[in-house]
Amino acid sequence: MATYMDVHTGMKGITTEQLAAAHRADLAIEKDEGVHFQRAWADPVSGHVYCLSEAPSAEAVQRIHERTGHPAAEIHPVPITVS
Amino acid sequence: MATYMDVHTGMKGITTEQLAAAHRADLAIEKDEGVHFQRAWADPVSGHVYCLSEAPSAEAVQRIHERTGHPAAEIHPVPITVS
Repeated sequence: MATYMDVHTGMKGITTEQLAAAHRADLAIEKDEGVHFQRAWADPVSGHVYCLSEAPSAEAVQRIHERTGHPAAEIHPVPITVS
Repeated sequence: MATYMDVHTGMKGITTEQLAAAHRADLAIEKDEGVHFQRAWADPVSGHVYCLSEAPSAEAVQRIHERTGHPAAEIHPVPITVS
């Protein structure tokens, strides 16, 4: 398992409820690919959405996002973290 | 105060120690602008770094990152979050 940051674009105007619904849809099927989506952040002005996940691969992350109708524009493994 | 996600590019090969040192440098002066950097994630292969912060403005985030020698390529307010 590794940590991934994925980026969606083109989500201008996204609302709190829309982000929550998209996240719930991902959570509902994420186990099929061994993925867990931890957090997501949205900028409704630029339309960027960032999702943090734990997953076996970037492809696994994308398969979940594709099935729920919002494929990511970029998926980056982020093996280095500080807090 | 608002939440921001900023993105750095061109950091290929960044190490755990280099990310930690950059984060410590930001933390050391962040109060000058009323910013708090919470977490950062790095992809040493693509060279992307993502930083999550609480700040009064995107400009305040950038002033700290500029003073510590690593200006962000993009800074997005992310008023919508799910977890």
